[in-house]
Amino acid sequence: MKLLKHNLSEKLIINKYLKKLNFKNKGTFDFENDGAYLDFNKKNYKLTVTTDNISEDIDFFSNDDPKSIAQKITTVNLSDIFAMGALPHSYLLNLYLPNYINENWLNLFANQLKKIQNKYGFYLLGGDLSKSNKLIVSSTFFGSIKKKLEIFQNKFDLYDDILITGNIGESKIGLEILKKQISSNINLNQYFIKKYLYPTPCKLGPLIANHVNSMKDISDGLIGDLADMLNDKYGALINVNKIPLSVKTKKILNKNNFRLEDLLNAGDDYGLIIISSQKNRNKIFNIANKNNINVTLIGKIINKKGIHFDSHLDIKNIKKFDHFF
Amino acid sequence: MKLLKHNLSEKLIINKYLKKLNFKNKGTFDFENDGAYLDFNKKNYKLTVTTDNISEDIDFFSNDDPKSIAQKITTVNLSDIFAMGALPHSYLLNLYLPNYINENWLNLFANQLKKIQNKYGFYLLGGDLSKSNKLIVSSTFFGSIKKKLEIFQNKFDLYDDILITGNIGESKIGLEILKKQISSNINLNQYFIKKYLYPTPCKLGPLIANHVNSMKDISDGLIGDLADMLNDKYGALINVNKIPLSVKTKKILNKNNFRLEDLLNAGDDYGLIIISSQKNRNKIFNIANKNNINVTLIGKIINKKGIHFDSHLDIKNIKKFDHFF
Repeated sequence: MKLLKHNLSEKLIINKYLKKLNFKNKGTFDFENDGAYLDFNKKNYKLTVTTDNISEDIDFFSNDDPKSIAQKITTVNLSDIFAMGALPHSYLLNLYLPNYINENWLNLFANQLKKIQNKYGFYLLGGDLSKSNKLIVSSTFFGSIKKKLEIFQNKFDLYDDILITGNIGESKIGLEILKKQISSNINLNQYFIKKYLYPTPCKLGPLIANHVNSMKDISDGLIGDLADMLNDKYGALINVNKIPLSVKTKKILNKNNFRLEDLLNAGDDYGLIIISSQKNRNKIFNIANKNNINVTLIGKIINKKGIHFDSHLDIKNIKKFDHFF
Repeated sequence: MKLLKHNLSEKLIINKYLKKLNFKNKGTFDFENDGAYLDFNKKNYKLTVTTDNISEDIDFFSNDDPKSIAQKITTVNLSDIFAMGALPHSYLLNLYLPNYINENWLNLFANQLKKIQNKYGFYLLGGDLSKSNKLIVSSTFFGSIKKKLEIFQNKFDLYDDILITGNIGESKIGLEILKKQISSNINLNQYFIKKYLYPTPCKLGPLIANHVNSMKDISDGLIGDLADMLNDKYGALINVNKIPLSVKTKKILNKNNFRLEDLLNAGDDYGLIIISSQKNRNKIFNIANKNNINVTLIGKIINKKGIHFDSHLDIKNIKKFDHFF
């Protein structure tokens, strides 16, 4: 951990809030060195790395519950780790902190991280702290995967299945409710807002890694992420009425001026898009069922580039959610 | 590499400027996946990790040459890797880019990174890009070190040598010249400004790792970093007239209202502080000499906590350079 010991505040942040997150792992030097050793001695396993950040006013609001911000930074990264077919091992945390961050904020933030670390089994390896005018939370996650496995995002064959986990669009509806663009009854509002504030990663990836050709998490909407997976050889045909929507989502679509199209490029669902051979379909469904994870076959790889739908969708009006510009 | 393919600008940044930095390493997936594999198959070696960032208006100015910014982000991290006794292996780059960043900027920045990668032998593993109102460049570096080695920053014995590499204060003088706080003739001005804009890491660390008790790079000034290394058991006695200053620095001290004290807690020199047993002194000097690196014995570990000087220094007026507050 990069720390400036003689500043009470930074010392306090590390000692009081972050140190407990290293789970006494020796390689962290208890955050007293500028660097750390990554103890990774799993024979026949290799290390995966992913890095992602969330920023104030882009991925969250400054007055959001710090628990939600902790949930989001871990989910965006864990989701990538799982999509690579890997299990989380450890992570680095880089915090860019504005003046409004206080001890109460840090306490809630660190406790939520600890809860998530315990749930999935990984520890804080190190990081650094900086002052900033806006809050940015950046993290690098390390995962482990069997050496022989290699999950690409864009390798598959003609007529492969296209599957997705979970339901589409619930996080987006939560955001629209928060922005007062749509509304429903209190119970539904709370349900969807929770989906937006507390997204969870789909842990199916490592369980089916042997049986898939490609995987990617849905972080920029189903269409955007599927488009990222397609290569210059084949395209995708999607069965529109197979796209999984929860009963609650259908209620919203019926009552508001809000269409299926608005959900297909909606932000952060963190389900997985899986592209796999038809012969592995039953294996994947069985593993998913055993783990209480919903998987839906929504289409297949076809011999025509681009994304195609089996019924009319007004997708030219859909603006892709884009974290960058 | 976390990328949003459908945005021309981000695609362009990655394809035109960053892709050449992966040195065709397979585990990077040519930056087309959200994550990467860290190919680290060196038997009897372990992986070290460090992460550090530099920010506009804190560590550099917005109109600084992008080559200087590339130099700084690699040096702050390489310096930590070398201080751990490790050799660089690969790195992640997280760029937070404001609107003023253009193709010319990216070209100069990436070319300087490539030059440094070639010099020290490491490649770009991945990263991510975000939009920001201020430029922040954050990086996570991976290094390799023999498994049996473990370099702490705060483990040593009574009467151990305290050594430092290079000269003290040149980067600080460069900054003061840029801020027009001090001035000299054109040649000296250019010399010191270059020291500030283009700091280099000291590669001695891995060469002497077998012979030291502790090492740390000087990133917050000699006194601040030495204080970070001291534990609750022993202190340091420093021979003031042994502190290495270049002839050029002495000229500045003579001609300006600028004192030795102002240099002892001066920012980024990126030399190493080495604490080692007296019996290894000759070995360390021999290795340093062979590699044309200046090493100076400046003091020893004593049985009295804190930092002490053998002659009077007005250090209570020295404000520690602090990246955080």
